[in-house]
Amino acid sequence: MANKPSIPKGTRDFGPEEMAKRNYIFDTIKHVYALYGFQQIETPAMETFHTLMGKYGEEGDKLLFKILNSGDYLKTISDEEILQRNILKLQTKLCEKGLRYDLTVPFARYVVMHREELHLPFKRYQIQPVWRADRPQKGRYREFYQCDADIIGSDSLLNEVELLQIIDTVFTKFGIRVQIKINNRKILTGIAEVIGEREKIVAITVAIDKLEKIGLSKVNEELRSVGISDEAIDKLQPIIKFDGSNEEKLDVIAGVLKDSEIGLEGVNELRFILSKLKLLNLQNETQIDLTLARGLNYYTGAIFEVKALDTQIGSITGGGRYDNLTGIFGMQGISGVGISFGADRIYDVLTTLDLYPKESVSGTQVLFINFGDKETAYCLPIISKVRKAGIRAEIYPDSVKMKKQMSYANAKGIKYVALAGETEMNVNKITLKNMISGEQTLVSSEELIKYILG
Amino acid sequence: MANKPSIPKGTRDFGPEEMAKRNYIFDTIKHVYALYGFQQIETPAMETFHTLMGKYGEEGDKLLFKILNSGDYLKTISDEEILQRNILKLQTKLCEKGLRYDLTVPFARYVVMHREELHLPFKRYQIQPVWRADRPQKGRYREFYQCDADIIGSDSLLNEVELLQIIDTVFTKFGIRVQIKINNRKILTGIAEVIGEREKIVAITVAIDKLEKIGLSKVNEELRSVGISDEAIDKLQPIIKFDGSNEEKLDVIAGVLKDSEIGLEGVNELRFILSKLKLLNLQNETQIDLTLARGLNYYTGAIFEVKALDTQIGSITGGGRYDNLTGIFGMQGISGVGISFGADRIYDVLTTLDLYPKESVSGTQVLFINFGDKETAYCLPIISKVRKAGIRAEIYPDSVKMKKQMSYANAKGIKYVALAGETEMNVNKITLKNMISGEQTLVSSEELIKYILG
Repeated sequence: MANKPSIPKGTRDFGPEEMAKRNYIFDTIKHVYALYGFQQIETPAMETFHTLMGKYGEEGDKLLFKILNSGDYLKTISDEEILQRNILKLQTKLCEKGLRYDLTVPFARYVVMHREELHLPFKRYQIQPVWRADRPQKGRYREFYQCDADIIGSDSLLNEVELLQIIDTVFTKFGIRVQIKINNRKILTGIAEVIGEREKIVAITVAIDKLEKIGLSKVNEELRSVGISDEAIDKLQPIIKFDGSNEEKLDVIAGVLKDSEIGLEGVNELRFILSKLKLLNLQNETQIDLTLARGLNYYTGAIFEVKALDTQIGSITGGGRYDNLTGIFGMQGISGVGISFGADRIYDVLTTLDLYPKESVSGTQVLFINFGDKETAYCLPIISKVRKAGIRAEIYPDSVKMKKQMSYANAKGIKYVALAGETEMNVNKITLKNMISGEQTLVSSEELIKYILG
Repeated sequence: MANKPSIPKGTRDFGPEEMAKRNYIFDTIKHVYALYGFQQIETPAMETFHTLMGKYGEEGDKLLFKILNSGDYLKTISDEEILQRNILKLQTKLCEKGLRYDLTVPFARYVVMHREELHLPFKRYQIQPVWRADRPQKGRYREFYQCDADIIGSDSLLNEVELLQIIDTVFTKFGIRVQIKINNRKILTGIAEVIGEREKIVAITVAIDKLEKIGLSKVNEELRSVGISDEAIDKLQPIIKFDGSNEEKLDVIAGVLKDSEIGLEGVNELRFILSKLKLLNLQNETQIDLTLARGLNYYTGAIFEVKALDTQIGSITGGGRYDNLTGIFGMQGISGVGISFGADRIYDVLTTLDLYPKESVSGTQVLFINFGDKETAYCLPIISKVRKAGIRAEIYPDSVKMKKQMSYANAKGIKYVALAGETEMNVNKITLKNMISGEQTLVSSEELIKYILG
C-alpha cells in the first residue's frame, strides 16, 4: 500500500462508538435547549471574508482557513503583485471566503440578514463544527463542534437565570457534578475604578486567583510587583480574603465598591440572579468567583464558567452577557447573553468517569443467524415485525459458519441472537439466546419482541 | 449599513422552521438506519488532496473547494513557477487539502485507515454536508447534506433486499408514495454483449426510455441513428416493448439474454431480490426498469432509484452495488452496496405535499406571561416543574405590555399561554389560555401539565 491515506492534522474520524457517545451529548443538550424554548439554526460552513476578517483579532485572521477561489484565481493579480509576495494582501485576492471560526460571528451575520423575519427576543441554539488553523495538541483540534445558545434582544436578567438552569439541568442529566462559577464584568470594572487601576484588572484577578496556592502575603507581593499601589492593595484586602456564602461575599463587595455606581450595578445583578436561583433548587452549586475573567474584551455583564468537580479538566462550559452583537455589521442595539458547552471536554469527562448510559451506546439489539435461503425466508418477515416494534435488528447477510456470525454479534456488542432452523420452523418459533447469560429460550415472534423490550 | 453582510453564493442559512423540518427528515432516516443495524460515523470536513484528487474525474477536481495552506503558502513556489500561472499545478502547491466532495471517498479512506478495528460486514451510515463549486442554480447548492448508508464486506443480495426495505420504510414514515425502480448493471452488460454493442449501452437506455413519449418506431429510428444495426434492433424489440409484471419482464429479459452468462446472472440477482421482497409486503411498488442507468462507471450489480409519485421532482433516492470501494487507496477486495437519500429534494416534496407532522415543527408549548418580579418568582418553580414533565416552556423575559408578549407567542406558534397575577397567586393556580380556541381555564400546576400533555 504505497499511498497510505491519512487525514489532515488536527482533524478526527469518529467511529460508531464515538458517534453514539457524541450523539448522546448533543441530543441531551439539544433536548434541554428546546425545553427552554431555544430554536435551532444552522449557517453555512463557508462565510465571506467580509464576514470573517477582522472579527477575531490579528491572530484570529491568521487562524482562519481560507478557501482558494474557483477558476483562475490569479486572474486579478498582476505579476508585480505576485512577486512582492505579500502573503496577507495576496490571500484576500486569492480567496474570498473562509471556514467558520466560531458560531458567534455567523450568528451576528444571520441576525442582521434576517432581521425582518426575526421576532425579538430571539432564542437560538446552534451546534455545528468550527475550524481553526491552530497548532494541534492534546485536546485541541482544528475541527471541533461548538454548542451555543443565545438570547438576543432582551436585557432581562431572567435570561441569565435560565441559562444557569440549563447548565444545571444538562450536567444533572449527564451525572457530572459541577461547580458553576459566576462573576460580573461590572464588578471588575468597579474594582478597577475604586482602586484607580483600570488597566490592571486582569493582573489583579490572576494574582487573587493564587490565594489558595501561595497565601495572602505572596498575593499582595505579586500585586505590588505589577505596580498596584499599597493604598489600592489595602482596599483590595476584603476581596482577596474573600470567603463565606454568596450573600456574605456580595456584602463584602458592596462595601468595597460603595463609591462605584457600575460596581454596585454588578452587585445588584448578581443578587437578582442568585435570589432567583434560590427558588429553583438547582442540583449544582453556583458560586461567585471574582477571579473569573474570561472574555473581558467581549462580556459586559454576567460571566459564567463551569468546572467538573470529580476530574480535573478546566472549563467545560462558559458564557456571559455582551452588548452590541451585530454592531460589527452596522446594526446597533442588539445585546444578548449566551452559553457554550464544550462538547469535546464533556466527552472526556463522561469517559473518565464512565458515565455513559448503556442505552446511549447500544446499537443492534438482536442478530438473526443466517442458516441458508429457506431459513432466511422464514426469518425476514419476523425481523420486519420486530423492527416495527422499534427493535434494532439485523440478519447476518451471508450464510457462513455459525462461529463467524456469533463473533460478529460479540464484536458489535449485540445482546440477543435469534436462531431459527428446521426445529424452530416446524413449531413456528425462534430460539432466542442471551449472549451475556448464555440462556436460551424457545419463543414465538410476539414473545421475542416482549422479551427484548422487557 | 454600508457593509451589508451576505453569504457565499450557493450556500444557505437554515432558520428555526427549516431546521425543525430538516431535523425531522434526518431523524427519521437515522432512526430507520439504526433499526437495520447501521452505525453512524463522521469524517472531517477537510480531506488531504491525496484523498480527494483524481477521484471524481477532471471535472470533479475542478469542483473541489481547496483550502489555502496556512502560513507562507508561497514558500515552496519559485518566481518562475508563479509567473507561468499554471493554475492547476500551482494549486497543488498553494493547497494540500480540500473540502469533502461526497461521503463515499471519505468512507473508503476511513475503511482503509481503520481496517484493523473494523469487523466485516460493516454497516455504516453517514449524514454530513458536502461541498461542490458547481454553478449554483435552482435546487443545486454548493453546500448540501448527503445521507448515505452502505454495507461493505458482504456479497449477499440480502443487503440489497434490506436497503430496499429501508427505502420503503423511510418513505412510508414520511407519507410520500414512491415508485422504487431497480435495474442490474449485469443485465445492461448482457444486452450490450448480445447485440455486440458494448459501447452504446447508455445511448440504448436513453432511446428506450423515450418509448412512452415518442412511440416504438421513433425509438427504433433513434437507435439506428446512434449506429445500432438492424439485427441488433430486432433483438432489442422484446426489451423495448417491455411490459407486464416484474416476473414477466424477467422472463422476457432471460429470453433475450439466453446466451449471455453475465446477463443471466443479473436476471437471477433481480429474481432473488424481488422474491424476498414479496415476503415482506412493502408499501411501495418496486419495478424493474432497464432504462435506469445511473452510475454506470461505478455500479457493478443492482442499481436503485426512487421517484415520488405525487409530485414531479426527479430522483429522490438512489444507490447500487459496487466493487472495490477501497481499490483507489490500495486495499483490494472490499465491495459493497449502498443508498443515498436526497434530503433537499425530500424536503421539497414534503413541503409541496404538506406532509410535515405538526409535532415535528412545533417548538415551545407554553409561554408564561411576565407580570413583574413577584409574579415571576411565583412562576419560576412552576415552569421548572413543567419542563421536568418534558414540556417545552418559556417565560417572557421582560415585564412588558401583555400585547407584546402575546404577539411573541403568536409569532412563535405557541399554543398555550399561562397567566399568573394576584388572583391566581392567591389561590395557588394559573390561568391557562389556549391560543387557538381562546378558551381559558384556571388550573393547578399539575393540571396544567396534564392539560398540555393530554
